[in-house]
Amino acid sequence: MREVAVLGVGQTRFGELWDRSFREIGIEAGLQALVDAKLSSAQLGGLFLGNMASGSLLDQEQIAPLILDYAGLARRHLPAVRVEGGGASGALALHAGYLAVASGLYDYVVVGGAEKLTDVPDATANQITSATADHEWEVVFGATLPALWALIARRHMHLYGTTREQLASVAVQAHAMGSKNPNAHYRNKLTLEQVVGAGPVAEPLGVFDCAPLSDGAAAVVLGPLETARRHTDTPIRLAASQVACDTMAVQHRHDLTALASTREAAVRAFAQARRAPADVQVAEVHDAYTISALLSLEDLGFVEKGRSGPAFAAGEFGGSGRLTVNPSGGLKAQGRPFGAVGVAQVVELVRQLRGEAKDRQVSGATLGLAQDVGGTGATSVVTLLERAN
Amino acid sequence: MREVAVLGVGQTRFGELWDRSFREIGIEAGLQALVDAKLSSAQLGGLFLGNMASGSLLDQEQIAPLILDYAGLARRHLPAVRVEGGGASGALALHAGYLAVASGLYDYVVVGGAEKLTDVPDATANQITSATADHEWEVVFGATLPALWALIARRHMHLYGTTREQLASVAVQAHAMGSKNPNAHYRNKLTLEQVVGAGPVAEPLGVFDCAPLSDGAAAVVLGPLETARRHTDTPIRLAASQVACDTMAVQHRHDLTALASTREAAVRAFAQARRAPADVQVAEVHDAYTISALLSLEDLGFVEKGRSGPAFAAGEFGGSGRLTVNPSGGLKAQGRPFGAVGVAQVVELVRQLRGEAKDRQVSGATLGLAQDVGGTGATSVVTLLERAN
Repeated sequence: MREVAVLGVGQTRFGELWDRSFREIGIEAGLQALVDAKLSSAQLGGLFLGNMASGSLLDQEQIAPLILDYAGLARRHLPAVRVEGGGASGALALHAGYLAVASGLYDYVVVGGAEKLTDVPDATANQITSATADHEWEVVFGATLPALWALIARRHMHLYGTTREQLASVAVQAHAMGSKNPNAHYRNKLTLEQVVGAGPVAEPLGVFDCAPLSDGAAAVVLGPLETARRHTDTPIRLAASQVACDTMAVQHRHDLTALASTREAAVRAFAQARRAPADVQVAEVHDAYTISALLSLEDLGFVEKGRSGPAFAAGEFGGSGRLTVNPSGGLKAQGRPFGAVGVAQVVELVRQLRGEAKDRQVSGATLGLAQDVGGTGATSVVTLLERAN
Repeated sequence: MREVAVLGVGQTRFGELWDRSFREIGIEAGLQALVDAKLSSAQLGGLFLGNMASGSLLDQEQIAPLILDYAGLARRHLPAVRVEGGGASGALALHAGYLAVASGLYDYVVVGGAEKLTDVPDATANQITSATADHEWEVVFGATLPALWALIARRHMHLYGTTREQLASVAVQAHAMGSKNPNAHYRNKLTLEQVVGAGPVAEPLGVFDCAPLSDGAAAVVLGPLETARRHTDTPIRLAASQVACDTMAVQHRHDLTALASTREAAVRAFAQARRAPADVQVAEVHDAYTISALLSLEDLGFVEKGRSGPAFAAGEFGGSGRLTVNPSGGLKAQGRPFGAVGVAQVVELVRQLRGEAKDRQVSGATLGLAQDVGGTGATSVVTLLERAN
């Protein structure tokens, strides 16, 4: 299998981008990535785009050719393919782009993720979010995505003694990290008291335990590792890209507090890269809800099952320890434009591995992990990125 | 690049399947394909699913893991990825599955396509259909998908003298073919008078110039060609899979009467397979509208630009000539469950190339072509299938 590298990255600001259309943000991120990769559009072989909700929210399907068209590339008739898996759509697009280059049929591709979520009524956006749960077994009975994660949180608290404050510490760290990220949706800091005292969404989760809905786009250029140095002095090798799935409905799982899809994707990814969790210095994980970050750290193998709460609250993942988690601010502070999230995670890791992350640089990072999750874990994608020597 | 073969095929009946859910039809087609490929689910490496409208119509995203889950495979945590490109979603899923096996990261995958379109109000379904056009440049001004194809038809008539009766002959042949297909949505025959005399949808296109909206699912099993004979006596080689795109809006094209995306995808596919249009004995092409079939035959290289109308009306593609078109009945008679169409085209071609197509067998077929189109041609996928010796 041909080795694949990330040659360039681009990202818009995440947030409420009311003055800019879906196509504009998609193109901005893609062009940034092409410029960063020193790749002319004439060398480009195709586009793989992650997006979840343009059909429901914008009445627009076929958005991969749409972005290609408005980037001025339709006349070259490039292939453009949209990939969807709820909140994991971006990382799934990366997986598809990875397969494209690894197969040898494509040389250089842009993988993009884009989503516009704030131009529609909140009720509509929340309905869309719940479309990633099991419609027939969860949603029609009134379950929403935060309610399902709250159920999981309660069980984790019951089984392992995880506290409300430990959950809150995830959000506090996210906002501290996000305050250093110029692309972040939220750059304000939060205190533990503010998070714990905020209004409830689905108890024990309050407003500040839940990531916002954001507009935003991100893009990376992938190409063969063997020719990567023509494009960048610091090629980042895509050491693994693995997808795993689980039941749609939480109630159908053996263990409420395990993200089995994440565990499996991680096991496969570490096997593919011949590395172990202890080798990773920087990770971007799924903190759409504070509880989802805790489960993720456990199932990725970074901390023993049940120990993530105390470890997080003690600041083990905040930059002083062996592993720094979500230096971008994560979904909680950087923002949550569904389809863009998984691509933005890779953008952040590439900047970290290149040593270009400025104020939020994790020193000496050589191996990074991104984990992107759809719904309550029906889809997980784990990506390992390594600085090529 | 590793060579890829189709090892098994499965398909539900297409039509108004009100008594069966989305998940049921998806699973039926997938299991049929696994049985046909003599593949146990333990050997299966992943699922690639084409679907266009489950988010909009069923409030359900992440439908690839949903199908996996209800097939009883969630416990194995297989990868499952949904791919979307309007009416071309099924063939794009095939392209993604092809890349997966060609790359070597996957060995055996199911590629499925499924869609439920008849359980919702007609107005909703028609809105969804138009979501494959350019929302901001076409749909908000009142253009619908049939109206855009009608515009193209008028131009083709003006430039090349194509007649109303020539358009109608496409539907007449489709129903004649579909009458022999037990899975077809419509098995009644039509006369030229019936098609020409039917009520208008968007003139010159009448009701019988437009394919129906259908429920249905189709699936194929892909695997490495080198081990294909363990699974089947008649492996069908995926000789080419190519995607090309074009502007979303018809008004932005140089030539209204050319499907440039189809032309480019076909050129690339014939180059990949080192074959030419004259080598193809059987083709499944995009007859969502009678005019779209005529354009497709021209841009695939089967007939000179402007000559498709007389050639079709003369019966050149009806089974007596060098090339038989749409022996399944096509979208017009077999039916049009968006995401399933591109996969069903491949199912039909595999049956033809194996010599298992019964009443509708094209004798001696060794090379087949499938062409799947999204919207008015923003996406085209061309697949070449060859009987392996």
